[in-house]
Formats: sequence, C-alpha cells, structure tokens
Amino acid sequence: MNRPYIQLETKFRQLAQLEHALTFLQWDQQVMMPPKGNDSRAASIAELVALHHKLLTTKETADLIIEAREEETTPEICRSLTEMERTYRQSACLPEDLVKAQSLAGSRCEHGWRKQRMGNDWVGFLANFAEVVNLSRQEAQARQDDGGDTFGTPYDALLDLYCTGDSSDFINQVFLELKEQLPRLLNQVLDHQGQDGVKLQGDFPIDAQLELNKKLMASLGFDFEGGRIDVSMHPFSTGGRGDQRITTRFRQTEFMEALLATAHETGHSSYEGGLPERWDGLPVGQSRNMCIHESQSLLFEKQLFLSKAFLGYFTGQIHAVLPAATSFTAEQIWAASSRVKPSLIRVEADEVTYPLHVILRFEIERDLINGSIEAADIPDLWDEKMSSYLGLSTAGNYRDGCLQDIHWTDGSFGYFPSYTLGALNSAQIFDAIKKAHPDWQELLGGGEVLFVREWLHEKIWLQASTMESQELMKSATGQGTNPVFFLDHLRQRYLSL
Amino acid sequence: MNRPYIQLETKFRQLAQLEHALTFLQWDQQVMMPPKGNDSRAASIAELVALHHKLLTTKETADLIIEAREEETTPEICRSLTEMERTYRQSACLPEDLVKAQSLAGSRCEHGWRKQRMGNDWVGFLANFAEVVNLSRQEAQARQDDGGDTFGTPYDALLDLYCTGDSSDFINQVFLELKEQLPRLLNQVLDHQGQDGVKLQGDFPIDAQLELNKKLMASLGFDFEGGRIDVSMHPFSTGGRGDQRITTRFRQTEFMEALLATAHETGHSSYEGGLPERWDGLPVGQSRNMCIHESQSLLFEKQLFLSKAFLGYFTGQIHAVLPAATSFTAEQIWAASSRVKPSLIRVEADEVTYPLHVILRFEIERDLINGSIEAADIPDLWDEKMSSYLGLSTAGNYRDGCLQDIHWTDGSFGYFPSYTLGALNSAQIFDAIKKAHPDWQELLGGGEVLFVREWLHEKIWLQASTMESQELMKSATGQGTNPVFFLDHLRQRYLSL
Repeated sequence: MNRPYIQLETKFRQLAQLEHALTFLQWDQQVMMPPKGNDSRAASIAELVALHHKLLTTKETADLIIEAREEETTPEICRSLTEMERTYRQSACLPEDLVKAQSLAGSRCEHGWRKQRMGNDWVGFLANFAEVVNLSRQEAQARQDDGGDTFGTPYDALLDLYCTGDSSDFINQVFLELKEQLPRLLNQVLDHQGQDGVKLQGDFPIDAQLELNKKLMASLGFDFEGGRIDVSMHPFSTGGRGDQRITTRFRQTEFMEALLATAHETGHSSYEGGLPERWDGLPVGQSRNMCIHESQSLLFEKQLFLSKAFLGYFTGQIHAVLPAATSFTAEQIWAASSRVKPSLIRVEADEVTYPLHVILRFEIERDLINGSIEAADIPDLWDEKMSSYLGLSTAGNYRDGCLQDIHWTDGSFGYFPSYTLGALNSAQIFDAIKKAHPDWQELLGGGEVLFVREWLHEKIWLQASTMESQELMKSATGQGTNPVFFLDHLRQRYLSL
Repeated sequence: MNRPYIQLETKFRQLAQLEHALTFLQWDQQVMMPPKGNDSRAASIAELVALHHKLLTTKETADLIIEAREEETTPEICRSLTEMERTYRQSACLPEDLVKAQSLAGSRCEHGWRKQRMGNDWVGFLANFAEVVNLSRQEAQARQDDGGDTFGTPYDALLDLYCTGDSSDFINQVFLELKEQLPRLLNQVLDHQGQDGVKLQGDFPIDAQLELNKKLMASLGFDFEGGRIDVSMHPFSTGGRGDQRITTRFRQTEFMEALLATAHETGHSSYEGGLPERWDGLPVGQSRNMCIHESQSLLFEKQLFLSKAFLGYFTGQIHAVLPAATSFTAEQIWAASSRVKPSLIRVEADEVTYPLHVILRFEIERDLINGSIEAADIPDLWDEKMSSYLGLSTAGNYRDGCLQDIHWTDGSFGYFPSYTLGALNSAQIFDAIKKAHPDWQELLGGGEVLFVREWLHEKIWLQASTMESQELMKSATGQGTNPVFFLDHLRQRYLSL
C-alpha cells in the first residue's frame, strides 16, 4: 500500500478526471448544445456532480488526510495537504439535505427571476428569495462552525470560497478607502473629460471581427494549438491542460466590446494555461481564487490591452481587418473606450464607478448573511446607497436596482467583492511589472507582451494555490492588496492629459 | 428497498449518465478539441470508462438480475432483463488483465499501422498484429465460454457484439448467395453502363455546401432544435436524447460526397432520435445493433436520397444553393453517383462490389479467430480472394490490400459483416415501405419523406432492442434477412434503362 499522501494524490487526480468531464460538458452546454438537449445534459451533469461529491467526501479521505499530516513534513507536501483539506472540508461540511434544498430553491429563484426582473416584480421575487437567504445563512453557519475559529463571521466563511484568506474586516477596510476617494475622484473625472468624442459605430462583419479577435488573442500570447475561441451569450473561459477555451460575443455595429471581452477572457485562460503541470489534478495546483483570477483578466483587459501603448500598436491590426474602422485613430478608440458615466447597471459600469457598485453589494450581502438586515430591507438600502455613492436613485426601480444581478438568485453570496479586489490587485501587479520593466511602453508599443506573461507566469501562475491571496500578493508585489495602485491608475488614465 | 428490477433500472440509468458524458467528450475530441488537449481528454475518458465498468460489473448487478428474473413475469420486463444481462455479461465476462492487454496492444498496432500502411510494411505490421490476434482469440474464447451453448464458434461470440443473434453459419449462407450472384451481376452492369458521363466537378464554396447539407437534413426530417451538423475527418453520428449530432466533410471541387455522407449519418441519427423515450438509459431502449443501424443509414443514403424521385426533387435545391452546379441535370447527378467499377479499396467501392470486399474480410477474420488460419496467411488469402471475387490482384500490395482498414488493428473482429447485412436489410425494409406506399415515387418526387420516417419509427425505431436482429426483420418485413431484395435493388438501379 502506498503511503497516505500518495493515495490522496491518486484520489484527487481521479476526481480531476470527473472535473475535466464536467468542464467540457458545461462548455458544450453553453456553446454548442441544441436547445432540446438541455434535459439530458442537466441529468448527466447532476449525476457526475453527485458522484464527485460522493467520492471526495468519504471517511477514507478524511482519515488519509489525518494520517498524511502525521507522516509528511516537506513544506510542499504540507501545503498540498492544506489545499486537499480545504477542498474536502468545503465539500464535506454541508449536510446533504441542505445542498439539495439549496439547489432546488436556487433553481426556482433564478428561474422566476428571469421574468420577475423584466416585470420589476420585487414582491414575487422576494417570495422565492427569502428561502434562498434562509438556506445561505444555514450554509454560512455550517461553514463557519466547520472552520473552528478560522472565520470571524458566517459571511467570512462564504467569502473564503472566492477570496481565500481575505476576511470581511480586511475587505471592509480596503473598501472604506475606496468609498472615501472614489466619489471625489469621479467628480474630478466628470469635470475633466470633455464632451463625448467619436462614437465607434459602423458596419463590422462578424467573420472579420472573429478574425480580429483571434489576432488579438495571438498578440496576447494565446496558443491556438492548445485552445479555441467561440461565441456564447455571456463571455467566459474554461478548459483544462492543453485545451483552454474562451468565448466572446459580437455586435455588427461595434467592435470594441468583443475585443475587451476577448482580452479579459484571454487573461483568465492564460492563468489557467500557466499553472504548474506537475500538480495537475491536485488542489494545490489550481488557480488561487476569484480575486486573483479576476486580477489576471482585468490586467489583460484594462492594463494591457487598453494601455495607450498596446492599443496604439493594435490599432494597425484593427484597420487591417475592419475597413469600416480605418477612420478611427488609436487615440479616438482609446478615448471612446475610456468614457466615465455613473449608471444604474453594474455590468455596464466604467472602471471608476464599478467598485461603488460592488461595495454596495458587499455591504448588503454581508449584513444579510450575518443577520443584521432581512431580505425585505434590500430595496430601500439599495436606493439609499446608490444615492449616496453614485447620486442615482432606484426607488421603485427594482429592475435596474436589486434585481439586476443573477448572483444572489442561486445563493452565490461572497462573490461580488472579488471583482473589485481583482481590479485592485491587477493595478498593483501591473505597477510591479512596470517597475521591473521601465521600457514597458516601448515594448507594448511594439506589440511585445512576453515580458508581462513571463513575469505573471513566474510570480502568479506557477504559484498556483501554494499561498493564500495576501501572501501571494506580498510575494509577487512586496505588499498585500493596497488600493493606492488602483487609485493611481485611475488618476493616471482619467485625469492626465 | 425497491424490488430488484427497479434497483436495476436505477443503476442502468445512472450508468447512462456516464455514457452521456463519454458520448459528448468523444464528439468534442473529434470535432472541437485543439490538438494539445488530447492527453488530458484521453485520461478523462479512460477514467470514466473504468468507473463505468466498475459500477456495471459488481456482484450486486449479477445478483439483482438473478433476483429480478425470479420475481418478474411481464414480457416487457423480461425482455428488459435479457438486455441488461447481455450488457452485464459483455462487460463482465472478460478478465481485467485481458482488457488492459488488448487496449495496449490495440493502441500500439493502430499507431504503428498509420505509418506501416503508407510504407507497405506488412512485416512490421505483423509484428504487432500477431499479438492483437492472439488476444482477440482469448477474448472470443472467453465470450464463447460465458455464453454457455449460445455461440457455435468463438468468432460467433464476437459477431454477437455487432449482429445480435445472427450466427456465422447464417451469415455464411447469406453471403454464399451473394458470392454466387454478384460477380455475374457485376459483369452485366459493366457491360450495361455506358462510357463515363458528366463529371460533377466545379467550384462549390464550403459555406454554401454546408447550407445545402442542412437543407438536405431538413428535407430528410432532421430537427435542428435537437441536433447539429459539423465537420470532421471521418463522418460519424452520435448524441443523446434531444441532441443528435452528425458530421460530414467537404471538398470544394465536388458536392455529392458530402451530401451522401450527410444522408447516411442522418439515417443513423434518425434511428437514435426515434428510440422510445420511456426506456431512455435502459439497455432494452437502445438501438438494436450495427446491422440494423447500418440498414437505417444506407436506407437514407442509397434508397431514399439516391432514389431518382427524391434526387429529382432535391436537385432544385442543389441548383438554388450552388451556382456552379446548375449545369448538371438531376439525371446526370444520379448517373454520376451510380457508376460501378471494381477497385481495391473498400471505402471507395460502389454498391455492387462493396459486399464482395466485406465477404472477403468475413471469411478471413472468421477463420483467423477460430484458428484455422494464422495472421501470416492473410496477404496470400487476400490476393487469392480479390482475384477470385473482383478480378484484381493485391500480390505484394499490402497497402491497398490487407493493410487498408483500421478495424482489425485494434481487434474489432466481427464488425465487417454488419456493413453488408445492413445493405441487405435496407433494401428489404425499403421494399416493404414501397409495398405499403405504392405512391412512393410521387411522394419522394414532391420532397415528402414523412411516410418513410413514420414506417421506420413504428416498425424499427420504437422497437429498440426488444427483439434480436432476425426477429426484428421478420416483424418489420415479414421475413428474416433475405438477399433477394438487395439483388433486385441492384438490378433495378444498375440494369434498367
């Protein structure tokens, strides 16, 4: 019999084969599957998920982890065991009944929401949503209890699923800083930016746009021998070793939306593709979490692609592929892509206002899960915070207020902060890269991105899950997440000439 | 606790969820996957196959089948149990060591074959192939032993995987009839057909061809809400409930090859899509076997699409979509698609000579598995039979002789006869449909195929695996497989004015 740690490696690598199957069945569901295939696909996915859960959460797994902990001493193996245990606990700590009830309540709420949002029907939504909140509180409590004294509040136990190691206190502190600075900065930007510039409208055939997006991916270092791009309703990225897949979406009248989504997803998939091969299938070999993942996608999208230097280079390719875009200069494309305007809808928000949308959600979901507010309180709080942070009211407008997002409908509380932590991390990481490469502007201006990829590969991608978020940020940039880099980035981009 | 039969249903339906996953992972591997994804895909598929095998072949399955047999008496459930037992036995009767050794030897032989075929290297091939034969003989013996007195020879036990219930004696009898008639018929056809007619050459853009092939599928009753068409190296069909997928391949200089492949695969997928929904996931609810499957694909390709009536109708669509084809009349397209010429290569053979290629392989593989000849004897036998059946020699030409097919390289002995049994069955079934619908030519000439689909749906598709091949043919057409209908079809098509 192999020693316990080796048995665990074998077990987790077997589980990873099921995850591979799930990954590509879900990709196919989003991208390829005809509508009538959904029932049988859903049944197959549910069976694989159940099988995965059953194989992972056996008593044998728990026993092997304890035995291995006693035997193993090398730091690398200890770290691997920590991540195996995290994976095991996150899956094993919830009673089966709760998981089933959540899946049911979440499906019902999400399904209803699709119509209720259109109909501005908060009351109808609340009827389903109250149960989702009730069950998520139970989930948070169960996770907190399982963690011993790891989590200060129930909400912290949910946060840990997306922001490993970042507490709600820490996030609150970071967000307070943003809340203090952003409204003033926003006003400065609104004053500073002139009238609307050129609108990037025209006729841009989808075939040509697809070709252009492939050129962008190739310019950003994507390997088409080990991946592909397709079209889906909402852009996403997924995949496995040697097979990274992203999606984007096209509108024939506009070309920047697809390019931005493509750059974003190329960042996600570059991270996944750069993970260390020797840990394939092990929890320690996976990407750290959503906060770090989002830092990579936003770095590719906002810091890299939307840098004046790189966009200046890439405009040549835009002109070469899209005849209707040749009248737009690089400067005009950049300016049109850097407009700031407070709005009600998070997914349409610009870089400056986006964090305020997230902070609003963070504050509400934290208090909701910890029990200091109830679901029925949300619309008033939403309106109050929108008015205070962005000067916009959502009174009576649930559709563009608290009904706009899908996340809460199935109980994904704790997810929102990772968008903004990712944005802060991306600015901080790109700042470190710029310091390490003072000639970064010339390099990007020549279409050269290898120095960025190599830096990220060494400091982030190859580190996989060997550290918690803040340790990783420290080891990569010299300090934990600090909003100063993001704020500097905003000033630099939106207030300089 | 549910009664044993219900427990078996639950178990087989769970296994079907794994099969669903495998189906679409394999589709993706052929159609979508980038080249570097192959290693991780192969690992995931191997793990799912092993898991499936493990879950299917437990002692619990065997016990439940015995218990259920004692309790259940309705004919439908008894039939379902028979198919459950067949599935169980086919998987459980082979020692694990043998399966692993076969997989290894098969991969090695197939891998080597890809180069050896190009290099006409029989000696190199034989070095690997001898072990494949050795292991396949062990497999056949194990299957025969497991079957009690079900199988007259070891080869019959392999045949049963593809032609459920058809013995090698029965097939031999049918093939003797063909061997007697076909060479004479072939000479008559060669005398009868004139000089080469119009060549269907031109410039046919792939995009337009794809559109045309979709039109053909729609004309043949394919539902695009529940399926799709893509491109792959070798056309195939696969899928599950509500999600039938076919592939085809295009050449820009020719359009009939893709249409014929599309019609063929549409036949396969119509069969799968027409299986009874209430038995989804149960062995009794599956398509009968390859002999019946091939009868459906060949019926759609040769009997339906290539009927003068339907092709006359569809030529209008060809002209509408492919400007470069407007100069070809329906009659010319039909004639060009109905040329007969003896050749060395099975996959390029016409309807008249194809069965002789299959009979040659049947006779050799039967004697090889039963041990009356050895692998080293194959080239001489091949040459001898090719000379006798088709008047062509393959002496020293292994590449276009016994090295041309992939089937034997991984030990798929027993598969070849289903091509020709399928052809015989398709002619016999179409004859029954024509008798039931004397106005079939007017209907097809108007693009109406619903009467064909409805007949097949009732008599073949909805019967799934409730009968063995010959019972199914009898119940559908009034008699077991009889070559007279196929021979009549050939005379009708190739010897009439």
